[in-house]
Amino acid sequence: MFSVTVRDHMMVAHSLRGEVFGPAQRLHGATFVVDATFRGPDLGPDGILVDIGRATEELQRILAELNYRNLDDVEALAGMNTTTEVLARHVAQRLADRVREGEVGAPGTVEAMVVTLHESPTAWASCELVL
Amino acid sequence: MFSVTVRDHMMVAHSLRGEVFGPAQRLHGATFVVDATFRGPDLGPDGILVDIGRATEELQRILAELNYRNLDDVEALAGMNTTTEVLARHVAQRLADRVREGEVGAPGTVEAMVVTLHESPTAWASCELVL
Amino acid sequence: MFSVTVRDHMMVAHSLRGEVFGPAQRLHGATFVVDATFRGPDLGPDGILVDIGRATEELQRILAELNYRNLDDVEALAGMNTTTEVLARHVAQRLADRVREGEVGAPGTVEAMVVTLHESPTAWASCELVL
Amino acid sequence: MFSVTVRDHMMVAHSLRGEVFGPAQRLHGATFVVDATFRGPDLGPDGILVDIGRATEELQRILAELNYRNLDDVEALAGMNTTTEVLARHVAQRLADRVREGEVGAPGTVEAMVVTLHESPTAWASCELVL
Amino acid sequence: MFSVTVRDHMMVAHSLRGEVFGPAQRLHGATFVVDATFRGPDLGPDGILVDIGRATEELQRILAELNYRNLDDVEALAGMNTTTEVLARHVAQRLADRVREGEVGAPGTVEAMVVTLHESPTAWASCELVL
Amino acid sequence: MFSVTVRDHMMVAHSLRGEVFGPAQRLHGATFVVDATFRGPDLGPDGILVDIGRATEELQRILAELNYRNLDDVEALAGMNTTTEVLARHVAQRLADRVREGEVGAPGTVEAMVVTLHESPTAWASCELVL
Repeated sequence: MFSVTVRDHMMVAHSLRGEVFGPAQRLHGATFVVDATFRGPDLGPDGILVDIGRATEELQRILAELNYRNLDDVEALAGMNTTTEVLARHVAQRLADRVREGEVGAPGTVEAMVVTLHESPTAWASCELVL
Repeated sequence: MFSVTVRDHMMVAHSLRGEVFGPAQRLHGATFVVDATFRGPDLGPDGILVDIGRATEELQRILAELNYRNLDDVEALAGMNTTTEVLARHVAQRLADRVREGEVGAPGTVEAMVVTLHESPTAWASCELVL
Repeated sequence: MFSVTVRDHMMVAHSLRGEVFGPAQRLHGATFVVDATFRGPDLGPDGILVDIGRATEELQRILAELNYRNLDDVEALAGMNTTTEVLARHVAQRLADRVREGEVGAPGTVEAMVVTLHESPTAWASCELVL
Repeated sequence: MFSVTVRDHMMVAHSLRGEVFGPAQRLHGATFVVDATFRGPDLGPDGILVDIGRATEELQRILAELNYRNLDDVEALAGMNTTTEVLARHVAQRLADRVREGEVGAPGTVEAMVVTLHESPTAWASCELVL
Repeated sequence: MFSVTVRDHMMVAHSLRGEVFGPAQRLHGATFVVDATFRGPDLGPDGILVDIGRATEELQRILAELNYRNLDDVEALAGMNTTTEVLARHVAQRLADRVREGEVGAPGTVEAMVVTLHESPTAWASCELVL
Repeated sequence: MFSVTVRDHMMVAHSLRGEVFGPAQRLHGATFVVDATFRGPDLGPDGILVDIGRATEELQRILAELNYRNLDDVEALAGMNTTTEVLARHVAQRLADRVREGEVGAPGTVEAMVVTLHESPTAWASCELVL
């Protein structure tokens, strides 16, 4: 089994709804360091699972829609409580769509993806999707 | 599948029993950076797997019993060879108890936990428990 | 010459005024990892430059006034363009006040301070103050 | 389930064959930070999964054959496109051989291995082998 | 006194001339993580020392001339022993030229620069230039 | 002005004397990540400030005297309160001796040294010596 991970980051504002969030109910922000992992059992003929260059571009494109924004106002996230888990799922689903469309170069066979968002040096969350 | 990780650290002395440990049989010490990961298939109604604040507090509480101590003298660890693996299991078991008691906020369903102890920049060990 | 550094972090929203900031003129956010360094020529009788425990508490107290907030609405920052440089200066000045008041334990003689704010893995800024 | 990881690094030159690699078709290089993870269900009588000291030595020995070399000229890699995935598999297979030969101390039962090569702060790849 | 740092990286091959380099006399390679720091006493009217966006672009442009190359064949480095120190000086001098040309946005007054190249997790070198 | 830094680590037990240390008065321990920086104005004929290989060896030799020990029992530290600052000074003085003896290769002229000990991800201390 192989995996390839690419990393990028985004800087966003947001607020969270629910008493469980305490002070994070207020409008605040985060630099999310985002790791996107692609997993599959085999390598393609070039010796790669995915094209790292294409994977990097696709991740950057998805984050660009959120970067330097207040997530409370982003339409694609309307109605969501933009917790780290929910954002990880959002990015994973968007990237999974791109993989299915063949846009990550797909020389091998990607069977699963994990997206991890680090909200600080002491907390992070992941969403794993089977494709 | 989702996961949430919180990180803390502790500074302890200990010695290890067994020739395999070489110089680590002497009384020495470590700053253990401790990552506690909670895993589960679904998010709760607030969009979270666990309450990160509560998870952080519970991890800190468990580490406080060991922090700034000589583990050779800690009763809860009596009879154990406090290797990084054994300490990871100890922390994982203690945290799993707290999850079962509902003290980590449990808005989703935590099915497994992984505790990783980094003993240095070049070595770390993990224990995974299914709840 | 000695120095001691303590690290903490805060999660804030803000917007920046000025065309030079491009998309960062929009309301967005950051996890700022904050390093506070104290410098001085001599160690006190206990063999320390500052009390790391007290330094950590004072840094945390100063960040707590900003943490989980929209800096555009924080009175103490009114009229400021809250760039990373300006925030580093703000935290450094606040900490310097605490040092002068003897609240960082001052067993040695702190002559200078540097506060560094990391806005992302690829960009950070510092402010150095001579006390 | 337990795991133990040791980390080392190597500095190599190489070139990649295939249009997908773009500028990486040219002779260039990398500092690969290499993490070798050993996994197994039980700890041995000393409270360890593997001997960290021996694991470190074996990883270092395998990397020494590649370190400070142009991988295009290394016989053991002849005919391979030395992508990060392929190199991860090479190191994992070599280490797995050493585990099977009992050279990693094997006090517990290692059932699987993962080798991860970080080619930069923003990209890495892993190979997982079941033993 | 203020400073701003931006980080990027490049992946290069090279060899070093001189017995002191031992195995590094062979053709090998490195991922150099490059930090460019700008220092000055005052902030400009926007509250910044340099335009972080422009600084990032200029650093990337300078590294692009070296990235994915064998430095032994790069004309701009002809006759140089491309040690980490020498490469740090090369990048610092190139960036200093850009600062003097006003291409880093220069809203404040940059008086000095430091360029640090990390060749591995355990070794790095810097060159500081006064402008 | 140039600088070269090499990094290593050690795992030690110790206790600190003085009420200011609170729980750290108890026997505990630390993994100290140790950075040794050499500074000088010029590069030698090979294009280096110091021989990184020799610098790494000398740092390792000095740390080996402390590694896997209880510092309360180490003769070379007798009578010292082994705070992070004091240990940084100890390592810096030992390394400075080696530089003066020409054991760090000294192709350039090392004028100053800084030794930094990281006791945890959130606290570190440095000692700078002019040679």
